[in-house]
Amino acid sequence: MYYERENIKKMQGYVSGEQPEGRNTIKLNTNENPYPPAPDIQDVIANFSSESLRRYPPARADKFRELAASLHEVERSNIIATRGGDELLRLLITTFVNPGEAIGMTSPTYSLYPVLAQIQDCPSVMIPLNDDWSLPSNFTQQINEANCKLTFLVNPHAPSGKLVDTDTLTTIASELNSVLLIDEAYVDFVDADYDSMPLVRDNDNVIILRTLSKGYSLAGLRFGYGIGPEELIKPMMDKTRDSYNLDLIGQQIAETAISNRDYAMKNCHRVAGERNKLSESFLELGLTSEESQTNFLLVTVPVEFTFTAKQLYEELKAKGILVRYFADEKVADKLRISIGLPQENKKLVDTIKSL
Amino acid sequence: MYYERENIKKMQGYVSGEQPEGRNTIKLNTNENPYPPAPDIQDVIANFSSESLRRYPPARADKFRELAASLHEVERSNIIATRGGDELLRLLITTFVNPGEAIGMTSPTYSLYPVLAQIQDCPSVMIPLNDDWSLPSNFTQQINEANCKLTFLVNPHAPSGKLVDTDTLTTIASELNSVLLIDEAYVDFVDADYDSMPLVRDNDNVIILRTLSKGYSLAGLRFGYGIGPEELIKPMMDKTRDSYNLDLIGQQIAETAISNRDYAMKNCHRVAGERNKLSESFLELGLTSEESQTNFLLVTVPVEFTFTAKQLYEELKAKGILVRYFADEKVADKLRISIGLPQENKKLVDTIKSL
Repeated sequence: MYYERENIKKMQGYVSGEQPEGRNTIKLNTNENPYPPAPDIQDVIANFSSESLRRYPPARADKFRELAASLHEVERSNIIATRGGDELLRLLITTFVNPGEAIGMTSPTYSLYPVLAQIQDCPSVMIPLNDDWSLPSNFTQQINEANCKLTFLVNPHAPSGKLVDTDTLTTIASELNSVLLIDEAYVDFVDADYDSMPLVRDNDNVIILRTLSKGYSLAGLRFGYGIGPEELIKPMMDKTRDSYNLDLIGQQIAETAISNRDYAMKNCHRVAGERNKLSESFLELGLTSEESQTNFLLVTVPVEFTFTAKQLYEELKAKGILVRYFADEKVADKLRISIGLPQENKKLVDTIKSL
Repeated sequence: MYYERENIKKMQGYVSGEQPEGRNTIKLNTNENPYPPAPDIQDVIANFSSESLRRYPPARADKFRELAASLHEVERSNIIATRGGDELLRLLITTFVNPGEAIGMTSPTYSLYPVLAQIQDCPSVMIPLNDDWSLPSNFTQQINEANCKLTFLVNPHAPSGKLVDTDTLTTIASELNSVLLIDEAYVDFVDADYDSMPLVRDNDNVIILRTLSKGYSLAGLRFGYGIGPEELIKPMMDKTRDSYNLDLIGQQIAETAISNRDYAMKNCHRVAGERNKLSESFLELGLTSEESQTNFLLVTVPVEFTFTAKQLYEELKAKGILVRYFADEKVADKLRISIGLPQENKKLVDTIKSL
């Protein structure tokens, strides 16, 4: 015990959503995509020879990087492939933030950010969002005054689902003195007009995070990537990344997924449609939700409702429906509910009605 | 560029062995196993449903951990499953060594260790081995005097192949003031009497690293694990590890591999036999090699030989045979040659003869 570093001893680890063993649970708690990944992926797996695992995999995942570069109209040198988005977040801290230097983020935000900051022994500067989940007008000023070296912005925002528009992002990027990571884990579900790629081209401090977990229905694969200027991508590629960070079968599946982007986007579009429908059904039940551009809804359980948010979470769980409840004060009266298949969403609404 | 940390800017990244695209190269440069992984793995892949990738994988790889615990007769809490051995090495540094604190190792050793130390901004204390590759008698004293918080010992040693016996390890573990990582990447090829498990049971500072890359013919999978006291394993499991560090298909393949240990060990035994034979063939060519307990030989090219080590590396490469040459002074007259299939080893010997 006495070997552990002080900052590690003091910190709490990240707590991920429940993953029930059984198949009968309706699982709306970890923002997984309800639709399967592209059918070509099954073919890739079926044709995969286990003997090819004998050798080390391509160390830099160049084939995937080429495909991603082509999709986003950048160069391969602007892409880094990572084990889920998580690895990219960790690499950004390792590469650009010395222990003791501050990392900026909003409050609330993706709860992994402050955990990763603590591992590097970095303080998290958490700027509270306005009541409507928008960024305070002096956001960049506060981040700069705290001397942050890196700023994490999840967009669309978790857990609210709100999208920051590209004009606002452009201003933030140009004003910030730090590297800006725009975490677009949920971007594939955006149905508003949004394109952040010009930000990468026009700034030397912007990296965009993408993941195959949500939009491509591949949470089990652990595959993501970053898009950014070569000056920021290169040290992570050449120095701080674990050598051979991506296995062979994972690389082949990821290549196939991104080559079948249209298939995935069709499913994302269906999810977005269901999201807007579900939001209306909730309203009929007396539950308001934030306008979301993601595959989840942050639902407020008003005081006049039969149950508190926590009670509703527990009642649903008892009926085999898992949603996410956060104890955090700002969202203690809310539930984060992932969008499921139409029949799952209907079951959810019917179940709440019946309680 | 100006965003990079000073220690990252200054350092060189790890350079992995060449991975030629073509299939015709005889690849004896990265210590891959020449035999395929267990046939059951092909079945697991064939029966894997891509739809199951839609969900997050088991976050803690508990099924694999149970199997490894059972194999080594320890508890699940004594096992951490990682993305290759590399992730375990990184986690040990992140968890137990503050930036600026020293990390002990031998010189030479696995060249990744000092790279990982630099990423954490830690000095590497490199204790030169004796000329016969044995540890100097005051090894632990030197490590302790340098206040190392963590010591990396690869055993059997790379690049010499030499095994440190368990009595010596026992003394080292009890004398060291730091965490001791025994990197057993090559242990499956040991044909001497060797069992380091009592070290984990009897000391609070010893962690053993195992990998499926070499012994189980799964370098392309990126799967390894650590065995150690719960007090050392737990903070890596709960705090510093990337959440969901292992993908679903990888976990299933690893479970199958370790369940088919006998199959893998039979191949390792064959490799060890070939190693001993190859060593004799080299001797007939005038090339001496260190006594190895691994799946490679460190071969000395004597001054009276037709070529220098570097020339021989290049001559072989021109003939489609890749071996490893290190520029490092201590091994500049040597080549590290992985053991291939019998016909590959024969081709290597015949080619050297013909030069």
